[in-house]
Amino acid sequence: MKETLNDIGEDELIRRLMSGVVLDETVILGAGDDCAVVTGLPDGMHLVLKTDAMVGDVHFTMEMPADLVGRKAIARVISDFGAMGALPRHAMITLVAPGETPVAWLLDVYRGMIRIADEYGINLVGGETCRGNQLVISISMTGSVAASKNLKRSGACAGDLVVVTGQLGGSLRGRHLTFEPRATEGEWLAGNPAVHAMMDLSDGLAKDLPRMAAASGLEFVLDEAALPCAEGCDANQAWSDGEDYELLMAVDSADWPELSAAWGKAFPLLSLTMIGRFVEAGSGCRPALLGGGWDHFTAAGSTLKD
Amino acid sequence: MKETLNDIGEDELIRRLMSGVVLDETVILGAGDDCAVVTGLPDGMHLVLKTDAMVGDVHFTMEMPADLVGRKAIARVISDFGAMGALPRHAMITLVAPGETPVAWLLDVYRGMIRIADEYGINLVGGETCRGNQLVISISMTGSVAASKNLKRSGACAGDLVVVTGQLGGSLRGRHLTFEPRATEGEWLAGNPAVHAMMDLSDGLAKDLPRMAAASGLEFVLDEAALPCAEGCDANQAWSDGEDYELLMAVDSADWPELSAAWGKAFPLLSLTMIGRFVEAGSGCRPALLGGGWDHFTAAGSTLKD
Repeated sequence: MKETLNDIGEDELIRRLMSGVVLDETVILGAGDDCAVVTGLPDGMHLVLKTDAMVGDVHFTMEMPADLVGRKAIARVISDFGAMGALPRHAMITLVAPGETPVAWLLDVYRGMIRIADEYGINLVGGETCRGNQLVISISMTGSVAASKNLKRSGACAGDLVVVTGQLGGSLRGRHLTFEPRATEGEWLAGNPAVHAMMDLSDGLAKDLPRMAAASGLEFVLDEAALPCAEGCDANQAWSDGEDYELLMAVDSADWPELSAAWGKAFPLLSLTMIGRFVEAGSGCRPALLGGGWDHFTAAGSTLKD
Repeated sequence: MKETLNDIGEDELIRRLMSGVVLDETVILGAGDDCAVVTGLPDGMHLVLKTDAMVGDVHFTMEMPADLVGRKAIARVISDFGAMGALPRHAMITLVAPGETPVAWLLDVYRGMIRIADEYGINLVGGETCRGNQLVISISMTGSVAASKNLKRSGACAGDLVVVTGQLGGSLRGRHLTFEPRATEGEWLAGNPAVHAMMDLSDGLAKDLPRMAAASGLEFVLDEAALPCAEGCDANQAWSDGEDYELLMAVDSADWPELSAAWGKAFPLLSLTMIGRFVEAGSGCRPALLGGGWDHFTAAGSTLKD
């Protein structure tokens, strides 16, 4: 039997596909983080690159409000920039669509994209359309980050606290279409040296927290009772639903009280919650929660994504 | 009846979708050219951005050599950079694939991408994979161009000669998988002030020459007998087959003899052929050739692309 994508997870697939890639000295951060970071900009800034695709009947359906589908496509990428403390500036849109797609529906999708792009100061500088038998909306975005702020997911240290913004779980009831990407919050957090690592929660804490730990060569212990559950959600959902688009970070434990107090003043309407601790490899503890987050190929995810 | 993508052409679709887009002063060149160009780089350079997607059973099939499919995905974008006189530096790969796709096939595709990226000094800095019911390989690339060289497709003047590199037609017999993108040639041509406008021939002369003329507010007269036909092809095929990935340009007629002679010394193995003339709107002449080039939605293209 030939091995197929169904047999291996998304992370393992990317690892195999990208092995053999040689990078030169312009690359600060290649595959594996929220965004790629390369040199080339003046004044102590780095260029930040990101692509993100939404597939019809996987990430959205034609029954959802079209303008919110477009909004989501752009907001997901802004969220990734936020997780790096970076500022998005220019975007391109790649659209694959069946020939029978109604023009009016697509115009609504683009209207949603244009509106949120304007709101965040992002220029839509082009893209491409081509025919296919399934809708795909892929966004490619560039922007900048101060070299000093550039926050990888691999920077967590043993003893750092696991901290998240906002509430988790139940996003597919609607929040996945209307979430506010944590751009300002991400920039604020990236400017604080107490924050050692950051990423956004797109595939769910169950998938993304182990990723951050692994990238940092660590494991983690979760305080399940501390999980900030969205209204109507339990800890299992907060752990594994995904599409939260909140920020996950590693915070120096000595600095936590001060960071937490400053956060409360800067963002009084958004919670910042300590939910666990990063520990040395070998001393972590897999939580006894249900579900494992979303994997694009081994697919133990939500109804929509299945 | 609702209007669908089948009812309007690709160019009209993009025009409608992108209407309402507001650009700020950082954008030198937005949607509508081979690449987008924005400010931000030091030393008189601009940042160049491009995305390009290939769809399974539209641009390639799984029966084609997988490494050449990967090579083509990257080469198409290098070709667009060549058409701007720009240098590509960093690329991201978006892969949409069915779960039953063989891992080995994808590894071969990526092997082809990695090889040509290395050859052209392009860093593969990341990307994304997601599940879908059709293969899509989308490449997003950034690079740089000297502000002084930045060659739009809209710069043609009435009286300029229509000039193309290489031979045209019959690409789907194999050349569409093995073509050498005109990167060096594009940079050389962009550095010559006799060249007023340039683009690459991806959808075919029948589609791309009218595009250049329209972008420049002009029409054209074609010398059909002068078309450089690939071996075994007639003028109709050279006109409309597409996927040539040669360069199309507008050249100041007074400078043509000198440019042509210098070209012959710089690139003795590649022809540079004058095939017509740009003229004022109203005085052009639609060639009496068959076929109209490739449109992604109204689809009067080749067997493969249909």
